[in-house]
Amino acid sequence: MTPSPLALPFPELPQIAGVTLRVARARYKTWDRCDLTLVTLDPGTAVGGVLTQSRCPSPEVEWCRKALVLGEARALVVNAGNSNAFTGGRGRAAVEAIAARVAGHTGCRPSDVFVASTGVIGVPLPIDKAEAGLDAAVEAAPCGWREAAEAIMTTDTFAKGVSATAVVDGRTITIAGIIKGSGMIAPDMATMLGFLFTDAAVEPAFLQRALTAANALSFSCITVDGDTSTSDTVLAFATGAAGNAPLADDDSAGADAFRAALADVCRQLAMLVVRDGEGATKLIEVTVEGAESDRSAHRIAMSIANSPLVKTAIAGEDANWGRVVMAVGKAGEPAERDQLAIRFGTTQVARDGLAVDGYDEAPVAAHLKGREVEIGVELGLGEGRATVWTCDLTHGYISINADYRS
Amino acid sequence: MTPSPLALPFPELPQIAGVTLRVARARYKTWDRCDLTLVTLDPGTAVGGVLTQSRCPSPEVEWCRKALVLGEARALVVNAGNSNAFTGGRGRAAVEAIAARVAGHTGCRPSDVFVASTGVIGVPLPIDKAEAGLDAAVEAAPCGWREAAEAIMTTDTFAKGVSATAVVDGRTITIAGIIKGSGMIAPDMATMLGFLFTDAAVEPAFLQRALTAANALSFSCITVDGDTSTSDTVLAFATGAAGNAPLADDDSAGADAFRAALADVCRQLAMLVVRDGEGATKLIEVTVEGAESDRSAHRIAMSIANSPLVKTAIAGEDANWGRVVMAVGKAGEPAERDQLAIRFGTTQVARDGLAVDGYDEAPVAAHLKGREVEIGVELGLGEGRATVWTCDLTHGYISINADYRS
Repeated sequence: MTPSPLALPFPELPQIAGVTLRVARARYKTWDRCDLTLVTLDPGTAVGGVLTQSRCPSPEVEWCRKALVLGEARALVVNAGNSNAFTGGRGRAAVEAIAARVAGHTGCRPSDVFVASTGVIGVPLPIDKAEAGLDAAVEAAPCGWREAAEAIMTTDTFAKGVSATAVVDGRTITIAGIIKGSGMIAPDMATMLGFLFTDAAVEPAFLQRALTAANALSFSCITVDGDTSTSDTVLAFATGAAGNAPLADDDSAGADAFRAALADVCRQLAMLVVRDGEGATKLIEVTVEGAESDRSAHRIAMSIANSPLVKTAIAGEDANWGRVVMAVGKAGEPAERDQLAIRFGTTQVARDGLAVDGYDEAPVAAHLKGREVEIGVELGLGEGRATVWTCDLTHGYISINADYRS
Repeated sequence: MTPSPLALPFPELPQIAGVTLRVARARYKTWDRCDLTLVTLDPGTAVGGVLTQSRCPSPEVEWCRKALVLGEARALVVNAGNSNAFTGGRGRAAVEAIAARVAGHTGCRPSDVFVASTGVIGVPLPIDKAEAGLDAAVEAAPCGWREAAEAIMTTDTFAKGVSATAVVDGRTITIAGIIKGSGMIAPDMATMLGFLFTDAAVEPAFLQRALTAANALSFSCITVDGDTSTSDTVLAFATGAAGNAPLADDDSAGADAFRAALADVCRQLAMLVVRDGEGATKLIEVTVEGAESDRSAHRIAMSIANSPLVKTAIAGEDANWGRVVMAVGKAGEPAERDQLAIRFGTTQVARDGLAVDGYDEAPVAAHLKGREVEIGVELGLGEGRATVWTCDLTHGYISINADYRS
């Protein structure tokens, strides 16, 4: 598939001590590519996670939710091509079989094995293919980040990875993350599947808190089509190989630096997902300021970012700010029409509830021709602010989604 | 513009005693067609209305909201091509000027004049064009329903009208309605502009209650793209010319018959709007049963009807019921994955949370090839039920909306 015009090249990602990546061909679909990823983690690895809020989650999500309570991880398995969602008892059996198989290979408890699957809904994951794939993965030579990032892809058009470092307790720790997801990316918890790995030593409870906070400003702030996957999963693993004194709370040495680096990786990963939005040709950043609260600002920003009329206007490079007004109005949050101000890029187009008299459309038109578009809304009510990211809605989205399953 | 493939022919609509229709060319856009509609109503006409819940409504909506309190109407003015929304004081002045002009011509109070405008946002309605158009309309010969239905259109591809009769207090009363709206049709109050007229005698308070109830099962149950107009307006006018004893409450003779006829006209008008959804090629009826409440069923049905992934799947004639599961899951309403059943047309495709073993896809494929598609969801939790209507999401929607303003 042609890479998205918004694609970024896959970066050089450093190895993370205690993390070993392997991929294999389980052949969940009739394709000739690796579609099973097995990550093994050294003993003592802590884990945190954020999972879909769907009321109809996949058995993988239910499995991870349970396993997260223990806070320890020894392996991660990612299946691409079949989400195993909505498959009843057979789906649950597949997850249990995978965990048991990996536990046998690794010598750990099944509850130390995390599983995520992505792809078509409603078809039970074939246990025989999963087991054969796992056996092949165990025999395979370890691979790099790029291979793993490619093996977890489904409709993605480019592999996505990010890394960052921070100094914690006098040691340089590293965080690397990979992610997949393009369509069905929606509010609340947007990523299909994202995995972060660090060599920092982090207590599970603190890792969970840091990830939850990072998620609120990253994966929860992106939307492609407003739809929410039944499988959305973000997991963070901390092996502790860096040897710092384990981060346990906000007062631990380096806690701030670690949280900032984690948040940065999450934000960059989230934006990569938007850059691969199905049919996307433009990255749209929506900032709402002056709302009654941050939460209110977030809802209004998401109302704009999810509006098909706003997204098609941007696709058409049309500075149709009336549609932004519409989306503010429909959000159901406090807003005063006659105090509303709207900008595209740095150009104010509306102020005090009406068009800026004789505003110069030339810089706006130039801004909209670019790959990255900014929409700013000032409500004039309070101090609440939020930024979210989305992409435009194009013929490409329709083409991809009107004929995906067949 | 080519009529929607789902278009229905404009029906023969009966005259309503006490209602006089006229149209004129105000030339709000550079088009050569009538774009101003003036309806005059005999003295004693009662009015009820339902207006957009947008927090950024047009001055017309604010004007109507105020005027509705009095419950009396003598005229209706509809402007097409310019919504006059988000135009500050100049927009308000335009509405006041229109009401004053019509009041002068008709010999009524300005507050007896109802005004609705539809079209682009952010450009003040030119008062001179409105006044010249009104003066021309007053001089014009009365016209029929079809001309009025055409004059209120913007991106609509066909004129929309419906009528019904009922026996009230021993007299046959008639209701006729016209409507416009195709994009920006969304939850809560979906129609752009709809107008109903009856010769029944109805007290304003009862007319309002009957219209509110009819709206809940019609205009509030349709969605094209989830976006909400700043101008959505439905008004019902009752001239009383039929001479029945005025309907005042539920115990009035014929109250049930009147309410049923009004609800029927509203439902048919609402479905005409969906049939003209931008780019629509299929009418989709979504029914949710077994929810914890009707309200919960409605929210789940709307989540399905608003899902771009469901709508593109139907466009592709793909029985991708996994996307229906996804939309149920993301609604945030009570749902038990393992009790969920889903049907397309009359064919059950999933039951008890998984695909029906070896279900026959042939009748489903045949059903999806048709112009009218039914999706049924049974939650198995309670007695709540709801039906909503939407259309598929196609390349046509993108083409229309990516280049509307220019």
